[in-house]
Amino acid sequence: MPVVPRAVVALIESFESLPGIGPKTAQRLTYHLLHAPQEVAQNLADALLRIKKEIVVCQICFNISEKTPCVICEDLSRNQKVIMVVEDPLDVLAFERTNFDGLYHVLGGRIAPLEGIGPDELRIKELLPRVQNGVVEVILATNPNMEGDATAMYIERLLSPLVKVTKIGRGLPVGGDVEYADDQTLMRSLENRG
Amino acid sequence: MPVVPRAVVALIESFESLPGIGPKTAQRLTYHLLHAPQEVAQNLADALLRIKKEIVVCQICFNISEKTPCVICEDLSRNQKVIMVVEDPLDVLAFERTNFDGLYHVLGGRIAPLEGIGPDELRIKELLPRVQNGVVEVILATNPNMEGDATAMYIERLLSPLVKVTKIGRGLPVGGDVEYADDQTLMRSLENRG
Repeated sequence: MPVVPRAVVALIESFESLPGIGPKTAQRLTYHLLHAPQEVAQNLADALLRIKKEIVVCQICFNISEKTPCVICEDLSRNQKVIMVVEDPLDVLAFERTNFDGLYHVLGGRIAPLEGIGPDELRIKELLPRVQNGVVEVILATNPNMEGDATAMYIERLLSPLVKVTKIGRGLPVGGDVEYADDQTLMRSLENRG
Repeated sequence: MPVVPRAVVALIESFESLPGIGPKTAQRLTYHLLHAPQEVAQNLADALLRIKKEIVVCQICFNISEKTPCVICEDLSRNQKVIMVVEDPLDVLAFERTNFDGLYHVLGGRIAPLEGIGPDELRIKELLPRVQNGVVEVILATNPNMEGDATAMYIERLLSPLVKVTKIGRGLPVGGDVEYADDQTLMRSLENRG
């Protein structure tokens, strides 16, 4: 019989399989849960089982939701004429903290040929029927890196014959420092001046 | 109905309640699990439920174990004459990677008056019957900080009339750099020379 109980090893390994959690953090989380009241581990286990049971993907915008269509797609008080295209559900969360009140379209990632992710692996073609329904603007809000830019360029080429396509601004972040900004960001901030 | 499904909020909050996991990490872990295959969340949930069911505290050394007495306390091939006193089960794990082959005694923390943890909250008095059973040496291996040192001092005073008490060496860590060592460590390394 090993010195470390099998159940402890199993929990450490489960934590380690998550992104950004190394062996030391996995150990510390496990021993924390061993000492914490029963409910802490129980609540976490319950929440884990619930997400797979209760969460569906909205069949209009492909965001995660409790039902389909999701609350955003069903909310007629939102601006139905603008669709913002994002990579992931976390991006929707981020823009919901701004005053944006249009609709979303969640791609489920970005075009990444090296990982075998092409346009067909994303929810890109599902955009076409949506923009033909009185939409006047599609805002591309993919991440500001090479793959995100390539994805935006692909979608722009596809949609620009049908609808006005814009991209979120690039430049210095609020609170940023010109002195420490990288060359690419400074170049973008110059192109984007006005 | 909220924009973020309740089950997702519940999981984010459960992760956030763990030490060292902030809101951003909790969000990222949750969305990772939403996209990961069903088994990943299921395995983590199972492991969480298992630790509380299968893990007990050894009634001799107070380490966590699958049964009591634990495998270390029951292993007669180990040196029964030496007991190492540590703060937590993780410390046992660390010393098991060395060539130490005696027994352990897990205090369950350290004396910390500011947190209301006195000697009675720890497994200190449980050491007394153990050292009267042919034990020739007790090695104190509490953490090298103020609270760990105070705990060691308390136990040393208690046990030194009964048995030889030693402390693990203090000094520069292997691979360390004299130039960058702090004053306290350098002073200890001088006192500990030989």
